[in-house]
Amino acid sequence: MDYTYAPGRNHLFVPGPVNIPEPVIRAMNRNNEDYRSPAVPALTKTLLEDVKKIFKTTTGTPFLIPTTGTGAWESALTNTLSPGDRTVSFLIGQFSLLWIDQQKRLGFNVDVVESDWGQGANLDILAKKLAEDTAHSIKAICIVHNETATGVTNNLATVRKLLDHYRHPALFLVDGVSSICALDFRMDEWGVDVALTGSQKALSLPTGMGIVCASPKALEATKTAKSVRVFFDWNDYLKFYKLGTYWPYTPSIQLLYGLRAALDLIFEEGLENVFARHSRLGKATRLAVEAWGLKNCTQKEEWVSDTVTAVLVPPYIDSSEIVRRAWKRYNLSLGLGLNKVAGKVFRIGHLGSLNELQLLGCLAGVEMILKDVGYPVKLGSGVAAASAYLLNTIPLIPSRI
Amino acid sequence: MDYTYAPGRNHLFVPGPVNIPEPVIRAMNRNNEDYRSPAVPALTKTLLEDVKKIFKTTTGTPFLIPTTGTGAWESALTNTLSPGDRTVSFLIGQFSLLWIDQQKRLGFNVDVVESDWGQGANLDILAKKLAEDTAHSIKAICIVHNETATGVTNNLATVRKLLDHYRHPALFLVDGVSSICALDFRMDEWGVDVALTGSQKALSLPTGMGIVCASPKALEATKTAKSVRVFFDWNDYLKFYKLGTYWPYTPSIQLLYGLRAALDLIFEEGLENVFARHSRLGKATRLAVEAWGLKNCTQKEEWVSDTVTAVLVPPYIDSSEIVRRAWKRYNLSLGLGLNKVAGKVFRIGHLGSLNELQLLGCLAGVEMILKDVGYPVKLGSGVAAASAYLLNTIPLIPSRI
Amino acid sequence: MDYTYAPGRNHLFVPGPVNIPEPVIRAMNRNNEDYRSPAVPALTKTLLEDVKKIFKTTTGTPFLIPTTGTGAWESALTNTLSPGDRTVSFLIGQFSLLWIDQQKRLGFNVDVVESDWGQGANLDILAKKLAEDTAHSIKAICIVHNETATGVTNNLATVRKLLDHYRHPALFLVDGVSSICALDFRMDEWGVDVALTGSQKALSLPTGMGIVCASPKALEATKTAKSVRVFFDWNDYLKFYKLGTYWPYTPSIQLLYGLRAALDLIFEEGLENVFARHSRLGKATRLAVEAWGLKNCTQKEEWVSDTVTAVLVPPYIDSSEIVRRAWKRYNLSLGLGLNKVAGKVFRIGHLGSLNELQLLGCLAGVEMILKDVGYPVKLGSGVAAASAYLLNTIPLIPSRI
Amino acid sequence: MDYTYAPGRNHLFVPGPVNIPEPVIRAMNRNNEDYRSPAVPALTKTLLEDVKKIFKTTTGTPFLIPTTGTGAWESALTNTLSPGDRTVSFLIGQFSLLWIDQQKRLGFNVDVVESDWGQGANLDILAKKLAEDTAHSIKAICIVHNETATGVTNNLATVRKLLDHYRHPALFLVDGVSSICALDFRMDEWGVDVALTGSQKALSLPTGMGIVCASPKALEATKTAKSVRVFFDWNDYLKFYKLGTYWPYTPSIQLLYGLRAALDLIFEEGLENVFARHSRLGKATRLAVEAWGLKNCTQKEEWVSDTVTAVLVPPYIDSSEIVRRAWKRYNLSLGLGLNKVAGKVFRIGHLGSLNELQLLGCLAGVEMILKDVGYPVKLGSGVAAASAYLLNTIPLIPSRI
Repeated sequence: MDYTYAPGRNHLFVPGPVNIPEPVIRAMNRNNEDYRSPAVPALTKTLLEDVKKIFKTTTGTPFLIPTTGTGAWESALTNTLSPGDRTVSFLIGQFSLLWIDQQKRLGFNVDVVESDWGQGANLDILAKKLAEDTAHSIKAICIVHNETATGVTNNLATVRKLLDHYRHPALFLVDGVSSICALDFRMDEWGVDVALTGSQKALSLPTGMGIVCASPKALEATKTAKSVRVFFDWNDYLKFYKLGTYWPYTPSIQLLYGLRAALDLIFEEGLENVFARHSRLGKATRLAVEAWGLKNCTQKEEWVSDTVTAVLVPPYIDSSEIVRRAWKRYNLSLGLGLNKVAGKVFRIGHLGSLNELQLLGCLAGVEMILKDVGYPVKLGSGVAAASAYLLNTIPLIPSRI
Repeated sequence: MDYTYAPGRNHLFVPGPVNIPEPVIRAMNRNNEDYRSPAVPALTKTLLEDVKKIFKTTTGTPFLIPTTGTGAWESALTNTLSPGDRTVSFLIGQFSLLWIDQQKRLGFNVDVVESDWGQGANLDILAKKLAEDTAHSIKAICIVHNETATGVTNNLATVRKLLDHYRHPALFLVDGVSSICALDFRMDEWGVDVALTGSQKALSLPTGMGIVCASPKALEATKTAKSVRVFFDWNDYLKFYKLGTYWPYTPSIQLLYGLRAALDLIFEEGLENVFARHSRLGKATRLAVEAWGLKNCTQKEEWVSDTVTAVLVPPYIDSSEIVRRAWKRYNLSLGLGLNKVAGKVFRIGHLGSLNELQLLGCLAGVEMILKDVGYPVKLGSGVAAASAYLLNTIPLIPSRI
Repeated sequence: MDYTYAPGRNHLFVPGPVNIPEPVIRAMNRNNEDYRSPAVPALTKTLLEDVKKIFKTTTGTPFLIPTTGTGAWESALTNTLSPGDRTVSFLIGQFSLLWIDQQKRLGFNVDVVESDWGQGANLDILAKKLAEDTAHSIKAICIVHNETATGVTNNLATVRKLLDHYRHPALFLVDGVSSICALDFRMDEWGVDVALTGSQKALSLPTGMGIVCASPKALEATKTAKSVRVFFDWNDYLKFYKLGTYWPYTPSIQLLYGLRAALDLIFEEGLENVFARHSRLGKATRLAVEAWGLKNCTQKEEWVSDTVTAVLVPPYIDSSEIVRRAWKRYNLSLGLGLNKVAGKVFRIGHLGSLNELQLLGCLAGVEMILKDVGYPVKLGSGVAAASAYLLNTIPLIPSRI
Repeated sequence: MDYTYAPGRNHLFVPGPVNIPEPVIRAMNRNNEDYRSPAVPALTKTLLEDVKKIFKTTTGTPFLIPTTGTGAWESALTNTLSPGDRTVSFLIGQFSLLWIDQQKRLGFNVDVVESDWGQGANLDILAKKLAEDTAHSIKAICIVHNETATGVTNNLATVRKLLDHYRHPALFLVDGVSSICALDFRMDEWGVDVALTGSQKALSLPTGMGIVCASPKALEATKTAKSVRVFFDWNDYLKFYKLGTYWPYTPSIQLLYGLRAALDLIFEEGLENVFARHSRLGKATRLAVEAWGLKNCTQKEEWVSDTVTAVLVPPYIDSSEIVRRAWKRYNLSLGLGLNKVAGKVFRIGHLGSLNELQLLGCLAGVEMILKDVGYPVKLGSGVAAASAYLLNTIPLIPSRI
């Protein structure tokens, strides 16, 4: 059943859920299995080992939770904090806003550091707060690595530097939903205590698996964290890890095999090559935006995102109309502007299983849509700018040399 | 990748996850989609409408939550109750035990009514408690419709009768994980306030969707329920139901299309025919057990389950060895005995997408395994007993007449 | 197993096999079935009825043969002709050449009308031959509707006019392999006696089904045709058509369900809309070629093909290198130049399940490759030319209005 | 679309097409590819090498032809023989009859050696003919290894012995359609000149690939064989083998990947273990038939088939009614009696991807159907007889020890 059939492929350029590679779709095309048989633990063991590589951690403990990113957030918070705990959280767009909302509803004392949407987290204010907090009332820094609503990437290394500089023991909790597996993420090097992502983002799987990784310090924190939790309780997982059966409740067999295939593809391409590809796609997109004479929602180069670009449209255009036409006429799925930037930006997601010609097809489509809605773009201009850059940077495909 | 390849089909007879019908596997064999496009809400709308039919409710409100049965439990409890609330809960096996454990950890005051494993919920004690509770301190009755660990089905109609008899306003919360879509479940008639199931049980989907249905009274209770909840908060869903976009966070596109296909198959077969088929499979299994000279873990006929049969083995046999051999030699997946009945029972799940000859193949396998482990079964005896019954009850397949 | 993994989608722009729509892949994702059960004839009956629509015939009799286009050719010839029979055949490219080779090897007396590769069939010579052939020694006119090697479409209506004008009884045999379901094909109106295509072309299925449609006159011809045939003998099919079981030997269950899904998609889009889409894609491609300053292999506008464009490269470039780089660097599959035009042309297939943004992605890729191999193309020029045209012609997607 | 939906799995026990293993279905769940890219030849090379193992040949040359078994027959004959050539052919059932019919229609002088249906090929008569044929007028011996209609396996080693004994140069052409990959087949040891099978039989793939293997002597024979052939001409294949591109026309990408997966599974199980499994399934079936008090159509133990059992029913029963009821009531697909044995036998196919419990489910079903149609079978009797044998012979699954 397809309610809205259109010829050819759907061009999926929302910043998640993203395109699933054919080998991953194949791997998930299967019947259920008894998860208590020896096969599923054997598979799980390899996944828990290998998934650490995408976090760049050797000391972290991963959890593959049957949930979404929202659940992964809740897991990160409730396992490490107690109601009333002070968190410092950065409001820079819709997803950081939602996380902050969750933090409040879970009973934490959230110290919100707000920036204009399009700016990164204000780390100067963080520095100030850390400097002042000699009593260590701040229990956790909560930060979104890449704000999906505005296409802003925060500098996590700086956060760690500040924490170290002020010898502050706060936990460092990171939403890597639209970064991990696409942007370089260094859990151990940056001293991240909890990092998390969702299966439907750069891992290029269906939605349904929240992947959370906890540092030894985060695991230690669970012992005193008084937040109520059952479904999301890491200790239930750890109990079954020790038993070697791994699952406190039923996992999705299909997602486990899918994750195996997804990791295999990422390692076959090479994690650093995956990052380089995202860097190329991000840069190419930004060059196209510039060629069109439009502005990136991201206000400074230091924050630009290689997984999603939020494009500002002139005031006389409603960006929702761009998204609607993309879908109605070109079978192209773009991201809407959300909340404060609704109507003002449309988003091009360029993460996950994607290559350069797919992106160029999307950019060519955006050009036509811009014309459709009355923006005087020069057809081909964005594609030309992107191509000129890509021409010099796309490597040969290693398996085909 | 198959870690443990064996020729032919795996015979999957655990009481979940169960076999997925081919048309459902096909329906899920797809790329991701933008869940904010008009297509996904259009699909969701039909699902929310049709899923009510498997609960037999017209007044309930369903939630399709990206979680497992454990999460569905948590959703039922936290949306309707406050910490400290008194619940009456029946401990009759491993899954009711886990739910009770969750209730305790969520901070409720759980009044546990325990029975021997193999017995149903003691409703006489419930009557007594309700009679005594003139102050209405009991806020909820929590009961498992079908205890998967022991193959015991509780009588929900009686629970409702008792509540009505004593004019008790307690909420009536039901775990229908291994019953709904297989056993007749009458949410409206029985005045159930929250009913829930998991996608991987009788719906015959992969794991990953907790399906929860709330009565108007349950929805009303959310207004005063003080349990902390975010991911599982129904009000976030209701907000998006009103907007017509339906999703507070990303759903699994694949499970949505899979649910559509699963419901279509159930309605094509006819819900009452689905129940009749489960009744046949349950009865046939019990006749085989009897023919083998073994005992059903379920102690009285009134509690027998048409979705799972827990078979008691003689004391000189370890039931785990039966499960191990089934898998190692016959590519047959049986259910282990859990907790108190570990080593003492093995379980045959006969729910979901399954027909009579599949069951007879399983029963023939069990006979050989019983021989393997030293039990003097007469080969063919169980199959003969089951067949004799089935011969008179299997209908012609409607689409093939 | 993927020998040559590359990130993202493969951009498949060879003129067959073409991209398979997701719903068709899904429909074929199934186990085998007993083809003698009532289900398979019931399915076959709908296919035989509906497949006639893509030939625009009501009087023709279709055969779904487990073979390729080469086998379909053989079926057309051996069922209607006898060794020694004179055929008039047009040599205008690699596929007409191969068909002529087959005709010779099957023992016919082939009267070859050769044109330059890049030209259409010389119908003036046909007129002359028909005029001269008062003895009716010509038994069949064999013509390729669309020569896949050069991107040349012949005018079949003119062929019929000539046959009628000279009242010549020769059979009119047409290879529609790269035309049917993409270009307007009017079997009844044009008096075509045998028309044929292959499943992997515009029908967008896997290879493996040769679809042949015979006029009543062609069926009559089988009675006197002395060519040896068994596997390809239509009379074996006709025998089983009468019995209502349809199959003289085992069909591919998967391709039958796939064909059902493929036809459903075509009818949902509307056959005339399918033609219009191919017309748009063809025109857009030719405009890009022109913008690049390159020449189409097709020498006159009257012959241009809306399913494949063969692009001539300057003498200092080897077109094979273009195809090689496309695959090695851009995950783009282009068609090689074959035989006489090897090294001189590369081909862009634009038929089957394809939409405009997919094509623009391909064109953007070709521009980069042209740069790679030293041709001084202006990046974005082809995309701009194609977009300018498409912008004014792409309709809204009917299911999404 | 499923015209005839029934709950649970279809029990597919026709002697082809057979059940496809899940990993093979997965491997074929893919888009088309350019077969001229380097990937497809690389894949093809491994297939041509590995497929020889199932024929037990090192000197043979395999051809993977997009056709069915009927086409594979035609390929074997037309590549090695000339019209008028004398063949000795054994008529022992429907499939040998069809092959003989083909031989006649292809213009050979067929010397038919007929036996009762249920008997094997009369090799005494062959001996006599070879002895008499000092002029070597016999150009080929054509024999079906396993006659699928009657469940009769012929002794190919004896044929070779007779040829050697009489130093007769006739080609030895073998239909291994329902034997190869299930029964031990020794092309080199037995001096078979052409052996062939179809993908939908013991290889457990969809229909659509005829696999033909030619000895050096058979390849030599192509030089003088005057039978008309184009689509089936091995020399076209050999030309492309030399070029390293392998394909004279478009192969099914899906079947190539499917064959790769199928061979991988066979080699993982071990070819000799595959044979042993078929031997177990065949023996178990025959023991059940005996326990039911019915007769095997195969008249002597030396000819019994381990891939299909044709069961004779009492004269007062129409075997077609058994097949009809199996499908209509039990979702069980059995084989019809064909031609001379129509109404007299039903067939249980037990080849390909199948295990013991699947067979026991089928046998339990047959018992109920026999009751349905009025045959006084003792329920459970066949299952008991089969189980008693299997209990002592089923090995542990190697990957699970």
